[in-house]
Amino acid sequence: MDGRILFLLTLLFIISSCHSYKYRTYFYKQKVDHFSFADRDSYIQRYLISDEHWNRNGGPIFFYAGNEGDITLFAENTGFMWDIAPEFNAMVVFAEHRYYGVSLPYGNKSFTAPKYTGYLTSEQALADYVELIVYLKSAIHGAEKSAVIAFGGSYGGMLAAWFRMKYPHIIQGAVAASAPILQFTDLTPCNKFGQVVTADYARESSKCVEVIRKSWAAINAVTTDEGGMGWLTNAWKLCQPLKAQEDVKNLKDYLTNVWTNLAMADYPYPADFLAPLPANPIKVLCTQLTDPGHEPKALLQELFSGLAVYFNFTGKAKCMNVDQQADVRLDDRGWDFQACTEMVMPFCYDGIDDFFEPSPWDFKAYAENCHQSWGVYPRPLMAPKIYGGKDISAASNIVFSNGLLDPWSTGGIMWNVSDSVVSVIIPEGAHHLDLRGSNPSDPQSVIDARMLERAFIKIWIESHVSKKSA
Amino acid sequence: MDGRILFLLTLLFIISSCHSYKYRTYFYKQKVDHFSFADRDSYIQRYLISDEHWNRNGGPIFFYAGNEGDITLFAENTGFMWDIAPEFNAMVVFAEHRYYGVSLPYGNKSFTAPKYTGYLTSEQALADYVELIVYLKSAIHGAEKSAVIAFGGSYGGMLAAWFRMKYPHIIQGAVAASAPILQFTDLTPCNKFGQVVTADYARESSKCVEVIRKSWAAINAVTTDEGGMGWLTNAWKLCQPLKAQEDVKNLKDYLTNVWTNLAMADYPYPADFLAPLPANPIKVLCTQLTDPGHEPKALLQELFSGLAVYFNFTGKAKCMNVDQQADVRLDDRGWDFQACTEMVMPFCYDGIDDFFEPSPWDFKAYAENCHQSWGVYPRPLMAPKIYGGKDISAASNIVFSNGLLDPWSTGGIMWNVSDSVVSVIIPEGAHHLDLRGSNPSDPQSVIDARMLERAFIKIWIESHVSKKSA
Repeated sequence: MDGRILFLLTLLFIISSCHSYKYRTYFYKQKVDHFSFADRDSYIQRYLISDEHWNRNGGPIFFYAGNEGDITLFAENTGFMWDIAPEFNAMVVFAEHRYYGVSLPYGNKSFTAPKYTGYLTSEQALADYVELIVYLKSAIHGAEKSAVIAFGGSYGGMLAAWFRMKYPHIIQGAVAASAPILQFTDLTPCNKFGQVVTADYARESSKCVEVIRKSWAAINAVTTDEGGMGWLTNAWKLCQPLKAQEDVKNLKDYLTNVWTNLAMADYPYPADFLAPLPANPIKVLCTQLTDPGHEPKALLQELFSGLAVYFNFTGKAKCMNVDQQADVRLDDRGWDFQACTEMVMPFCYDGIDDFFEPSPWDFKAYAENCHQSWGVYPRPLMAPKIYGGKDISAASNIVFSNGLLDPWSTGGIMWNVSDSVVSVIIPEGAHHLDLRGSNPSDPQSVIDARMLERAFIKIWIESHVSKKSA
Repeated sequence: MDGRILFLLTLLFIISSCHSYKYRTYFYKQKVDHFSFADRDSYIQRYLISDEHWNRNGGPIFFYAGNEGDITLFAENTGFMWDIAPEFNAMVVFAEHRYYGVSLPYGNKSFTAPKYTGYLTSEQALADYVELIVYLKSAIHGAEKSAVIAFGGSYGGMLAAWFRMKYPHIIQGAVAASAPILQFTDLTPCNKFGQVVTADYARESSKCVEVIRKSWAAINAVTTDEGGMGWLTNAWKLCQPLKAQEDVKNLKDYLTNVWTNLAMADYPYPADFLAPLPANPIKVLCTQLTDPGHEPKALLQELFSGLAVYFNFTGKAKCMNVDQQADVRLDDRGWDFQACTEMVMPFCYDGIDDFFEPSPWDFKAYAENCHQSWGVYPRPLMAPKIYGGKDISAASNIVFSNGLLDPWSTGGIMWNVSDSVVSVIIPEGAHHLDLRGSNPSDPQSVIDARMLERAFIKIWIESHVSKKSA
C-alpha cells in the first residue's frame, strides 16, 4: 500500500453533510518563497471569510489552517467552527493551502518541475498564514487586537499545532484534531496504523477480520489461475477488466484503501463520502463477512457482498470502479509531492497483527519512486527536525484530539504534555469527528471533547484580551 | 549614515585580545535551501570544536550561533564561553554563518546574483544550525543526550534568541548578548540609537558633544570654500585627498562610524580594534575636545587631535584612511545583503537630541539603493513577523543582556518577559562586554551578569538532564 496516496484520503471524509455556510471569497497576494530571496515570484492565495457573527470590536478570529484540498471543502465540512462561532462572536476564516484548490503558485505549470513544485512545503504554507493574518488584522477595522485561534484536522491539524509552536505571537491557541505529528520516521512504528484499522473490524467480529485477511491470498490464487482474472472481473462487476498483474495490484491497493477509509470514516451517522456510507459502516460491512472458511472464489464472492456497502450503498452503481477519483475539487498531485518530500509517513503491514497483505516499509524503493515521479528525493527527517518530533514540551496552548477508532491516532499526541498542551481522547471517535458539526448521533465522548475545546478556546481568548488591555 | 554598513561593524570589536584557544576545524555538508525543494544544491559549512573540557558522558554543548563574519574571529573573541567551559565540562562549538568566512554556498559566485545570494537569511542560517546539532549529537559518542546552550552576541545574539524560540527541542537555552531584536521598523524609534551614542560622550563632557555636533557644519563650510578640501586633506592627514563632495560625504560617514564604534567599544581596558584603542576610549578622546567655541578650521583641528585616539593610538599611522577596511577576514558584502533584505534596521539623526548630522530615515531611497546594489527589495517586516517583534511572551529559557553604554541596547529586550526569559542590564557595559573573557578591569556589573548567566545555564542543563533521565 502506498503511503503517499493514503493521507490524501483523509479529506475525502469531510465531503459529507454539506451544509450551506455563508462566506465570501477573497484573494491575497503571497510571496512564493518566504525564507529566501532567490525566487521573488508572487501568487494569489484564496481565502474565505464569514463575519456574520463577529463582534466588530475585537471579537476573535477562528482560522482554519487549510490542508490538502480545495478550501471550500473544509469550509463546508468543519461544522464545529461554524457551530461555535456565534457563542464566541467570532469571525471565521478559511485559508487555502498553497498548491491546492485555486491557489496554484505557478498555474498549470505548478506540478511540472521541482522549480515550480518545490515551494509546496508546510513551512511555506504556515508563512502564508502568518502573512494573511497580519494582513487581515491590519485591513479589517476592529480586528487589530483580535485573538486568533487556529483549527485544523488531519494534516490541517498538524499545521494548526505547528502554527502555534512556531508563531505563538500570531495565534493564541490551536485545536489540532486527528493530527498525526508523530507519523514520521523513527517516531511511530510503521505497523501501528494497520493494527488500529484491523482492530476496528475486530470490534465487530473476528470472522470479518479473517475474511479480509484471507482475501489477499484468495485474490492471488484466483487471478493466477487460467481465466481467473475474467472470473473476478465478472464476479466483482469491475468497471475495467483485469488484464495483467498490475491491474491486480491496483485492485489490492484499492481494497487496502477501502478498509482504511472505512476505519477513518466509521462515523455513527450516515456520511456522504466517495460513495455514500451508512452509519457505522464497518458494523454494516461485517454483517456480510461471516465465513472465512470458504474456498477462494466463494470467499471473494462473500467479500464482494460486503464491499457493496462501500461502493454501492445507494444501489445505483453499475460497476465497481477501482480507479475512481474523488470529487473533482480534490487534487492528489499536491499530497503526492508532499509525501515525496517532507511528509514521509512510513507504513508497513505483516498480515498477522493486521489483516493487510504483508508489505514492508522500504524507504529506498519509496525514495526512488519519488525521484522518478517528481525529480526530488524525500527528506524523511525534515519535519521532525524542524517541528520537534515528540519533544514539544516548550509549546503552549494546543489541544490535540484523537479518536480511538481513527488509525491516525497512532501518530497523534495521546498524552497531556503540560497544563496548556493537552490531549483529548474520543474513544468512539473516527477521524476528526470533533471538527464535524454536532449530530444527534454523536457519542457523549465527542460532546465532551468539544466542551473541553471550547473551554480552552475561552481561556486563550480571555488571556489575550487581558494581555492586550494590560 | 548608512544603516546597512553600521551593523557589520559590531564584529570589528571582537577582534581584540586574541587568546589562543585550541579547537579543531570541521566541515559539514548543508542544504542551501532547507524550506523548499526548488534549489537542491548543497554547500560546505565550517565549524569549530573544542572538547578539551568535555565530559564525554553527556556533558553539555556550548554552541555559538555564528554571525556576520569569519567564525574564527568569534571563536577567538568570545572568552566567556571558553572561561566557563571547564566548570560545566562543556564541549564548545562555533558554527560559521552561511555566506561568511569560508562557508560560501556558491563560492565566488555567492554574491553575484539573487539566485546565488538569495539564500542568505537568518531562517536558513538557523536551519543550518539545527542540522549541524542533530548531526553532531548522532555522530559524537556521548553527545546524544547532551544539553545544548546557544550563545551569541549582536546579530549572533539575535540568532541565539530566535534559535531558542523556534527550535526549543534543539537547544535548551540561549544567552543573547546585545541582541537588538527590536531594531526593526515600527518597533524602536529610529532616533534612539544616535541618542545613546551621544549620551556616552555627554557622560564625559558636554563640550565634547558640542565639538562633534558643530563639526558637520564646519566640514561643510570649510570644504565648500575655495581650497578648503585641500586644507582639510592636509590638516587631517587624509590618505586620499578630498576632491569632490562625494569624498566629503565619505569622510562624514567615516566620522559617524567612528563615533558609533567608540560607543560600542567603550570598554574599560585596552582593546585591539581596527586601530588599537585605549581603555575607556571616549574618556580619552573627550579630553581633547574641549572648546566648541572655535571657528570652523580651528574646530576641525581640535577634532583631529581627538580622532588620533582612534586612528593613531600607537602613533604609527602615517595618514588617516577613511576607506580603511577591517581585518581581511571580514566581508561586509554579506551583511550589506542582509540589511537590504531581512535585517532592515532604521536609523535617523536630528542633530538636536544627538550630535550627528541630521539625516532622516528614508525607506524608499534605502529600498531603491538596495535594489540597485543587489537586485532585491527589502522586506522590512519579515523578521518581526517571523520572530514576533515585541511579543515573545511564549518563549522560554533566554537571557538577554544589554549594556547601557551600548547604543544597540535601544533595540534590545530590556525587561523581564517572564521567569525564564529575563533581561540583564550592565550599566557600565558596552557592546556584549559580558561575552568577552574576564578581565581585571571588568566592572562589578558585568561580573554579576556573567554570574546570572551561569546560574541560568546551570538550571537549563539540570532541567534537561532530569527530563532525559525521567
